[in-house]
Order: sequence, then structure tokens, then C-alpha cells
Amino acid sequence: MKKEIPYKIYLDESELPKYWLNLRAFMDKKPAPLLNPKTLNPMTAEELSSVFCAELARQEVDDTTKYIEIPTEVRDFYKMYRPAPLIRAYCLEKVLDTPAHIYYKFEGNNTSGSHKLNSAIAQAYYAKEQGLKGVTTETGAGQWGTALSMACSYFGLDCNVYMVKVSYEQKPFRREVMRTYGATVTPSPSMTTEVGRKINEEFPGTGGSLGCAISEAVEAASNKDGYRYALGSVLNQVLLHQSVIGLETKTALDKYGVKADIIIGCAGGGSNLGGLIAPFMAEQVEGKANYRFIAVEPASCPTLTRGKYAYDYCDTGKVCPLAKMYTLGSGFIPSASHAGGLRYHGMTSTLSELYDQGLMEARSVEQTKVFEAAEYFARIEGILPAPESAHAIRVAIDEALKCKETGEHKNIVFGLTGTGYFDMMSYEKFHDGKMSDYIPSDEELQKGFAGLPDLKL
Amino acid sequence: MKKEIPYKIYLDESELPKYWLNLRAFMDKKPAPLLNPKTLNPMTAEELSSVFCAELARQEVDDTTKYIEIPTEVRDFYKMYRPAPLIRAYCLEKVLDTPAHIYYKFEGNNTSGSHKLNSAIAQAYYAKEQGLKGVTTETGAGQWGTALSMACSYFGLDCNVYMVKVSYEQKPFRREVMRTYGATVTPSPSMTTEVGRKINEEFPGTGGSLGCAISEAVEAASNKDGYRYALGSVLNQVLLHQSVIGLETKTALDKYGVKADIIIGCAGGGSNLGGLIAPFMAEQVEGKANYRFIAVEPASCPTLTRGKYAYDYCDTGKVCPLAKMYTLGSGFIPSASHAGGLRYHGMTSTLSELYDQGLMEARSVEQTKVFEAAEYFARIEGILPAPESAHAIRVAIDEALKCKETGEHKNIVFGLTGTGYFDMMSYEKFHDGKMSDYIPSDEELQKGFAGLPDLKL
Repeated sequence: MKKEIPYKIYLDESELPKYWLNLRAFMDKKPAPLLNPKTLNPMTAEELSSVFCAELARQEVDDTTKYIEIPTEVRDFYKMYRPAPLIRAYCLEKVLDTPAHIYYKFEGNNTSGSHKLNSAIAQAYYAKEQGLKGVTTETGAGQWGTALSMACSYFGLDCNVYMVKVSYEQKPFRREVMRTYGATVTPSPSMTTEVGRKINEEFPGTGGSLGCAISEAVEAASNKDGYRYALGSVLNQVLLHQSVIGLETKTALDKYGVKADIIIGCAGGGSNLGGLIAPFMAEQVEGKANYRFIAVEPASCPTLTRGKYAYDYCDTGKVCPLAKMYTLGSGFIPSASHAGGLRYHGMTSTLSELYDQGLMEARSVEQTKVFEAAEYFARIEGILPAPESAHAIRVAIDEALKCKETGEHKNIVFGLTGTGYFDMMSYEKFHDGKMSDYIPSDEELQKGFAGLPDLKL
Repeated sequence: MKKEIPYKIYLDESELPKYWLNLRAFMDKKPAPLLNPKTLNPMTAEELSSVFCAELARQEVDDTTKYIEIPTEVRDFYKMYRPAPLIRAYCLEKVLDTPAHIYYKFEGNNTSGSHKLNSAIAQAYYAKEQGLKGVTTETGAGQWGTALSMACSYFGLDCNVYMVKVSYEQKPFRREVMRTYGATVTPSPSMTTEVGRKINEEFPGTGGSLGCAISEAVEAASNKDGYRYALGSVLNQVLLHQSVIGLETKTALDKYGVKADIIIGCAGGGSNLGGLIAPFMAEQVEGKANYRFIAVEPASCPTLTRGKYAYDYCDTGKVCPLAKMYTLGSGFIPSASHAGGLRYHGMTSTLSELYDQGLMEARSVEQTKVFEAAEYFARIEGILPAPESAHAIRVAIDEALKCKETGEHKNIVFGLTGTGYFDMMSYEKFHDGKMSDYIPSDEELQKGFAGLPDLKL
């Protein structure tokens, strides 16, 4: 007999995963390695360890170990907010009048307000274990910076956050949360780094960008003894840590005998989606299952749906290794979308490779459609979503409505990555009808592609 | 053998209470009834039903029914965010190095950000059931307004919120959350009511007060067909609905064989504390248990610790019934404390009576001490508390430190009523050292008492 499915499936603490799942280790054709921008040879863990903690550098290049143990200290921290609930959207199903069953994994149930904390605590732990004094990082929308501040505070590490200037000014409360956790927050571009000074000189009054803030944070880490750089998305190590999302989701579904048909996630750098799909995709590439995976991105920053699969710079200052990814070019400047977390020009190499192999679909959605879905969802399911997360909601609703048309019963699972409490300025614009649906023209995209490095590989 | 206690105790949905507990029905000496301000006779349910829904009016005067069934529709809504977790503060205990065990019931795990939703959904349900079009209410800090907006949105009711003007201006994002849920929000005092116009005339440029916003909301409801007024604290009906907090807490503790020694809650109007202690106090008054209960209030608004136990007006406009309560006088204007939810001049009659009978203690704490505890707690336990909730944290920490001195093992339970995401402006003031610890002088209190009605009862 099937167990009745509650509104919220909370796993026991004993069911919290003990291992992260390294998706690359399951793939036959591996994602392309990071390249040293000078030699164009694959980066070694040793080379990477001047930028990242040694253990994180090791994880970054490891594409053979399928499961990596979660340190006890990290699991103990996870226990303060995990397992995160898998929620059955009974109310949404009823209002949509769909035969589909909708589930969402809610990662907003912690003070950082998003899934970012899952990797932040791991990165802080390895920094502490290595005896470092602190870490530097960048933040756009502010979720990653908040998460890393919390994690560093827990382990007594210093945390220096370079926050994209426009966000720093528009989101003073995000900044204040980071200060509450003892972090120092600097608007980027700043005058504290060479790359920041250069960009300020070239573009006086600029509001900054994620690519630029990354360059500054990397430079700042390299200039300070006992510091390393930490990044909240795009990297392999981050996808590894985020697999905890998918592992819990799969355990919860298995427990109730539910097989997912469609798995949906928003995708900026790819950390949430990569983590959510990890165990499901591992089954898929081993030929053991047949899921549909859908990455959802903003039409204003259409990395997968309109980008090129090529080696590119990860940051504006070109101080980072090169990554092969779907990209719009590191010089592409997305319009001022309100989903700041999805404004990155590239997509993590693992998801890029899976997409290229046809194992994953991608869809782009326009901003007002996203906010319509966000508000609709908030009113029905109670949770006020982050604009980023609402991209996944939009497509989940669209798929549920298709089921209504066809009469098919499908199990739709999506990732609700976070809450929108610090995004109310965007909601205000939406309510006041002041939100634009800007989509870049082909000509604009060509300009971005023109900046791709010519590697002659 | 005792079960190992997890970090978070989540009850199953099947353990969600089916009945609210009506604490007054357990008390030998009942709290004094509301009085009709004209006749000075106790208000009947019929009289109250011109202001409140009929069923809520009935609940308001019912001091004999011990358990009142929670309607299925309300329980279904509860399932979207309840049972709320009871958290064992392992990390805090470790850092404090105390033999005490500390537990907190976390009510911030929903979009309204506080416990207020527990009563909001009940009040909206009864309004819907009665066939009303909508409800009016007031909000100070904004938590209650948000909660009622969510609840009304769920049942398709119109919701008109009078928001204390100073909060309306300082917390635009709170306002935006309410708009997301379809509510209309009016800064109070407004020009839409007689009492509002009068106050604006008398005190031009005033930032408003909770007592004034109540008067406006009551007047607005009486002027509109198919509308009633809803209140988020102070009333008996609200304490009844909030008993779900205490009932879950007790079930969770019983499950793990834990007996609480001290139960602590912040107290403004008393809704959270009254709900948290309900089943424990019911045992106490029946002589079946021996707990210590501590109400914590701001030193800037010391209702219990320095107030008078007397009949008083509930609102500035004196349009509401009279209530016997610990009060500072309806004319008392507390300093601009950052715990807006605790700035009410009176205390709910049930808690007032229990305090008067010596069944409950009260303690007042200064603002900077509260924010110190808030930040400390956020860094250690991860959750960023609302300033209101941090009052309880402050005393819980103090009690745990006393245990450290004496070596006593005690089980300390406190209510963490909500999150501080919309209070970052207050945290900023704290970080910048700009927070005042204003305590009213005896002379100021005397002025407030001078405004108490002389009922010659």
C-alpha cells in the first residue's frame, strides 16, 4: 500500500546524506577541464591551490570519485537547517486543476535564504581545516555573500565580500545581514584592487558586474597571507556540495514510491540545478532511468538557449582559468534583470556538457511572466519566492498546464532555491507595471561572442 | 531508553493539534470580561459581532469550553507550514558552556515571518464562512498585516490594512509583501476615517501609533457592508488560536521525555506568550505541574513590570470595548523602540490575570542588550531573529548562564516568534552604535496612568 504523501516531507536527521555525489564521475564523456590561461594546459590541483583551499582544488579536478564523504563538522552544521523539506504542492495542483503531481524542494528555509549555504559551509570548513585566516568572495544578488558570511562566522573565519556596486546600493539590508555575521562588505568595483581601480578608471560611475567582482575577490585573496578565494557557483566543487539537494530529494521521493518524470531548475551559474539533478542524472547516464531535465534561464541572459559552447574567460579581469561552457562571452552585459543570481554570462561545465550531449533541455522565460508566476505561487502556496527561483516555478506551472490539456499524470519536481524577502524592490516594480522584458538582439549577442578567446586548440 | 534528541524536532502532520486549548476555561479565577464603554456591562457575543465575525465573537467571550475544534480548512492551511520545528540549541549550549538544555519553538518558518499567521488564517476562515467580503486591520511592525494578507488571499477575501505611518515609511518592503498578497495598505493616521482626520488635525505630521491605527481599522470596518475588523493580539480569540504553538511544543517535548523547567516568551500584546504557555499553564493551574513562566518586555514599554492592573481603553480613539489589563495607559507613547511588535500599552487580560495571581514572572530588558543577544544568537544558531523574539533570547541566555554558575541542569524553552529580515534597519543602527536605551521616567508613566478611565465600578 502506498503511504499517503504529506504536504511537507521532512526526512529524519539520520537520513541526511553522508556523501556528496560527484556527477562528473558518472559521465562517459567528461566536461572539459579548466585551462591555465597562460599555458592552455589543464589546471592541476596544485596550480588551483594558490587560489582555492587545497582540498577544494582537489575536488575541483576530481572527475573519477563517485562519492565524497561529507565531513562530520559540515554535517553537524547541515543539521541546523537540513534535511530541507520536499513539499507537495497540493494547493497549486488544485487551483491549476491538473492531473500532474507537483513537488518542490525548498531551500529557502535558512537565514541566508537560499541553497548557497550548502556549499558555503563546506568551503569555510576546508579553509578552517587548512588553518587559513579567512576567505574573499564576490556576491551579486547577495545570497552567496550572506551564506558565506554565516559559514565563516560559524568557523571563526574572516570574510571579505566584494558586492556588485549596484546591488550594494539597492540592497542595503542584504549588506546589513552580512555585517550581522561579521563580514566586511566592499562595493565593487572598488579602489582596493588593481583590477577595480582599472575598471573604475575605464568606466567611471559603473555599477559593476559579477565578472568584475570575481576578479577583485581573486586578486584580494592573492594579496593577503592566509586567505583564499571562494565562489558560490559555476565550479565543480560547488556542484558537488549542492548534490545534497538532489540526494535528499531522491530519498524523499523513493520513500513514498514516487518516480519523477520532469525535473526543473533555474540556472544561472548552474549550482542549484546541478545539485538538484545530480543523483537523477547519474542514473540517467548509466541507462537506469529516463527523466526529462529542464534548465530555465532568463530571456535577458540566455546562456544555454542562445550561447556558444566554447572556452571562455570566467571573469572580466581575465585572472581566472578558462572554462569550456555555454557562454555569451565574458564581455556580455545582461540587462538589469531582477534575478541578479541568473545574470552570469556562462554555465557550469558539467551542465554545459550534458546539454551539449542532449541529456538536458533548456528554456528561456521573460521577466514579467516570471513575476506573474512568482506572485501566483506566493498567494497559493504561501511561500514568497526569490525571482531566480520563480523561473523554475514558471516552467513547472507551464508543464502542469500541458498535463491538464493532455490529461497525462506526470510527477513534476522543481527546485525552489530561495525566498524573495530581499527582492521586494523588484516586486514593487512589477506591481507598478515598471518591469521591462528586454531581450538582447542577435547583434548584441554577436558582440559578446566576438570577445571569446581564440585558443587555436 | 531515552531517544536521542535531534537538532530539530519536526512532528508529523498527523500530530498537528486537532483542537485549540482555551486557557481561560482552566482558570479558577477568570480574566475580567471586556466592558461596553457606554453601559460598563460585560460585552456579549452579540454586541461584539458588530465588530468581529460571529464565531470569533463567540470565542471571545467563551471562558468555559476547554478545547475548541480547529476547522479542517484551517488545519489544511496549517499543514503548509506547520507543525513548526522545536529546535534544540545544541550550538548555543556548547558556546555558553552551560549544563542547561535549551529548546526553542521557531515560528518564523513561513512567509509572514512570524507566529501571527496562526490566528490570521483562523480569522480569515470564519470571515469567509460567514460570507463576508473582507476584513480591516491595523499593523505596526508589519508582521500581523502580512499574515492577514496571506490568509485573506488564500480564502479570496479583501484585506485593508492600516499601517502605522512611521512603519509604512520605514518598511516599504513589508508593505510590498502585503501588496503581493493583494492587500491594500493605508498609512495611519489617514484621511479616510473620522478618527484619522481628527488625529491628523490635532497632531499634524504625526507618525501614528498602534492605538490610533486600531481605531481607524475598526471605524473602516463599521462603515463598509460585509466587512469586519480583525486584530492580531491582545484578544482572547487570538490567544486561543495561538495555543497551537504550545500544544505542538508540549507534544514534541513529551515525545522525547523532556520536562520543561522554565518557559520564556516575549510579550507585547501577549499573543505569542499566551499561546506558548497555554497547555503548560493549564497543567499548572490544575496543580499537575510546576513550571516557571517568564514574560519578557522592553524596558521602554514596561507594561507588566511597571504598569497598573486596571480597566483601560484598548485604542487611542476609544471606540473599542474596555479591557482589564496591566497597562501604561492608552495615552502612553513608548519611545521609538525597534521592536515595534512590543510597543502596545496593554497586556492581554489572561496573562494580566495570571501575572496578578503570581503564576507568571515578568522581566524587562534594554534594547542594546536585546540586540547583542540577537546578533550572538544569529551567529551561533544561524537564525536571524526579529527584535521582538530577541527579548526572549536575551532572558534564555541569562537563565542558561545562571545554570552555569549554579551547575544546575534545567530545561529552558523559549519562543522564537519570528525572523528579522525586515528589521535590518534596526540592526544597522545597532551596528553603527546609534541605538538608544531610553527608559521612561516615573513622571512619564504617571502621565499615562492619569489617562486611565475612572469607572467607579
